[in-house]
Amino acid sequence: MTELPNEIDHSREEVSQLVEKLSQATDGQQESLFEQAIERVEAGEIALLLESLPISERLERWQQVAQDEQLDVLVAMRAEARGAILRTLPESTLIALLDRVDAESLIELADDLPESIVDAAVGRMTARQRNWFEQANQFDDDEVGRYLNHEMVLIPVNARAADALRVLLRSRYPFSDQAYLVDAQGVYQGAISLQQLASLTGSQRLLDAPLLDLAPLQATTSLVDATEAVEHSDLSALPVIDQDGRLLGRISLQLALELTREEYESRLMATVGLDEETDLFSPIWQSSKRRALWLGINLLTALLASWVIGQFEATLVQVVSLAVLMPIVASMGGIAGSQTLTLVVRGLAMGQLAQGNLRALLSKEMGVGLLNGITWSVIIGAVAGLWFHDLATGLVMAAAIIINIVVAALAGVIIPVVLDRQEIDPALSGSVVLTTVTDVVGFLTFLGLGTLVLLP
Amino acid sequence: MTELPNEIDHSREEVSQLVEKLSQATDGQQESLFEQAIERVEAGEIALLLESLPISERLERWQQVAQDEQLDVLVAMRAEARGAILRTLPESTLIALLDRVDAESLIELADDLPESIVDAAVGRMTARQRNWFEQANQFDDDEVGRYLNHEMVLIPVNARAADALRVLLRSRYPFSDQAYLVDAQGVYQGAISLQQLASLTGSQRLLDAPLLDLAPLQATTSLVDATEAVEHSDLSALPVIDQDGRLLGRISLQLALELTREEYESRLMATVGLDEETDLFSPIWQSSKRRALWLGINLLTALLASWVIGQFEATLVQVVSLAVLMPIVASMGGIAGSQTLTLVVRGLAMGQLAQGNLRALLSKEMGVGLLNGITWSVIIGAVAGLWFHDLATGLVMAAAIIINIVVAALAGVIIPVVLDRQEIDPALSGSVVLTTVTDVVGFLTFLGLGTLVLLP
Repeated sequence: MTELPNEIDHSREEVSQLVEKLSQATDGQQESLFEQAIERVEAGEIALLLESLPISERLERWQQVAQDEQLDVLVAMRAEARGAILRTLPESTLIALLDRVDAESLIELADDLPESIVDAAVGRMTARQRNWFEQANQFDDDEVGRYLNHEMVLIPVNARAADALRVLLRSRYPFSDQAYLVDAQGVYQGAISLQQLASLTGSQRLLDAPLLDLAPLQATTSLVDATEAVEHSDLSALPVIDQDGRLLGRISLQLALELTREEYESRLMATVGLDEETDLFSPIWQSSKRRALWLGINLLTALLASWVIGQFEATLVQVVSLAVLMPIVASMGGIAGSQTLTLVVRGLAMGQLAQGNLRALLSKEMGVGLLNGITWSVIIGAVAGLWFHDLATGLVMAAAIIINIVVAALAGVIIPVVLDRQEIDPALSGSVVLTTVTDVVGFLTFLGLGTLVLLP
Repeated sequence: MTELPNEIDHSREEVSQLVEKLSQATDGQQESLFEQAIERVEAGEIALLLESLPISERLERWQQVAQDEQLDVLVAMRAEARGAILRTLPESTLIALLDRVDAESLIELADDLPESIVDAAVGRMTARQRNWFEQANQFDDDEVGRYLNHEMVLIPVNARAADALRVLLRSRYPFSDQAYLVDAQGVYQGAISLQQLASLTGSQRLLDAPLLDLAPLQATTSLVDATEAVEHSDLSALPVIDQDGRLLGRISLQLALELTREEYESRLMATVGLDEETDLFSPIWQSSKRRALWLGINLLTALLASWVIGQFEATLVQVVSLAVLMPIVASMGGIAGSQTLTLVVRGLAMGQLAQGNLRALLSKEMGVGLLNGITWSVIIGAVAGLWFHDLATGLVMAAAIIINIVVAALAGVIIPVVLDRQEIDPALSGSVVLTTVTDVVGFLTFLGLGTLVLLP
């Protein structure tokens, strides 16, 4: 009877408990606590722990990480958090750190290192690793070719089944339930599973054997398409080829999961103008700089809205209730519009929106906007009318709410579609543009109608 | 030489092109186009195509889906889109549809079906499937036990290596690169890989063999922890056990990827008060109802902000520039606060925030807020001063901006932490609470300072 390990290898709960202990410890305690922690957990969790410490503590604890683990920990960290450590390391330490770096790790780190250090590391790589590094470097951030895994079993296409089976059964690589057949030029010829190999007679040549029914991915395939292709393949990995059909590497389900997580983390951070690599404890000036652009863009839209309000100064002086109520109109439009926008952005991301069904979507969203607009205009109109003891104020409010919610629905469909056609990411910039529209239209209709109806 | 398929099995691009053609076709054309499409693609893509059609067209095209594929297509659809089809099917059709439903599919569909239909389907299941269904039903939506995969190879713990290897090499299940050892009571005893099995002598008993170094997951493990555990295991799947140690099923990397995608889609939709199952073309009244709650909550916060403004009516009548400028103060606070909030929500989700480092984070965010506050207050104060040709107006504006951005930073840290402790999801409700704070504080400080300084 073997012993069962009784802990989960990696868990939020465990990281969270360690963070709690580490962050409440005094300096001396922290050192010995961290010593215990890094013996129990792996590079990924050490990275999470280091990121959760303010920079001065992070740099002290970094000294305790064993040299042979430092590289893996750095690769696992977010770029900005990693940068805070890398910047403090002298050139000789960096060179030692990268002594036996592999292509995949160097691709991840290269942007945060001086070019001379990267060149030196590439120079000391084996020919095979250097080749992989240079291949990966040819592809963009969002192309699968940049992230390929090379721990795969290659079999010459003229091998016999028994030999291939033996190689695969001795493989120490993860996910070795399939092998790739290549010709002498490294051109991909097919994939075969362990189970298929085992069903062949040992002397059978693979080139006549039944192979896995899969399509290799092009290295320029986008990450979204590549990860979905692996997810739906029922296989542990898919091979990736270049335009000449040569096998460059593979994308495993594990890599697909990692890339998917990063993709969604980026999208969530993009909603506030940040990116996935942002460090929880980056230096204050650096954080401020990073956030400034988003605040600046937002300021421009806010100034535009204020300028619209400014056109109605004369009205506001005479009917002050308009100033009190106007944020409600803008805000309801913004919220309704962002619901439509989010739905449409998702539809675009899934390829479910095209020219043909856009009209149907537009009329459905207009319908929803109209129904919601009417419902809420009655409620808000009544509140406004009672609040200011004035029927006309209530009516102006109601009319402005309907108009702004319907316009918001329209804008929520049109803005992301137009941005997408201009190849601007609607997930990043859609909400700013939308809010500008709903603010401007909200203030304009409400104050405009107020001027027409309520001015004494 | 075998033939290489030259298409990707599943791709956004392909779905998008099919959607384009289908949605631009006339009724007659659409029928034959869809006929061609469903022969080329699988259930997952048929689901995407059906979802991208307005409901009347969707129901017509649904008729064309082959009966033996209908169940898989329904399982792959979003709940709301699927509901639109299920509601139109007579009871006899539903019963026929579920004739050979497996436990995993029925778990996915059960909420959208009448209880009597579900009971009837469970009654006709094999004892094994019924058992799996009832097990899965004991676990919550966010526990891994609800989603387990049962296509795994089980080996009695006293089996010989040669027999186990033979069983595994004949398996037709995906990801059959490992087998699970169980005793006569179904209690999990360990896992062994194909490669490990192949290295043993054929007569060796597995109970003395070296096994995989992995920890089985408890069925009550949260989806986030379970998917991370698989991702970091370097294995294609992890076994999942109940509290008595019995093996219930497994979570494969493929399942982990699917669950991760759904989890993030939910988080993205939650930012506007919707959920992942929302249909692009749900009926207008249904969409309106779904979105009403979010609009209602937002209305309450907008009314609160208006009430604050209302307290300064007398000031606004005399200094109308305050009415023009006040949205800028509220908006800059909201944007700055949401940046902090998003960072903190991510930190909480990753377990990287605890009591101990909260103070450090708070002071860092306050520092960022102060630096950004000062920067932007100078710019905005200058704009306001020049616009209204009044130094005092500029100064009031600048002071209000600093205060609101610093308060926003504070609120951005404290709100999600407090919500999280109350076990309220900060990703869902954080932004509403934050906006309430930044609106109220923004209007209060700006109009309050304006009253003190600018009133003639």
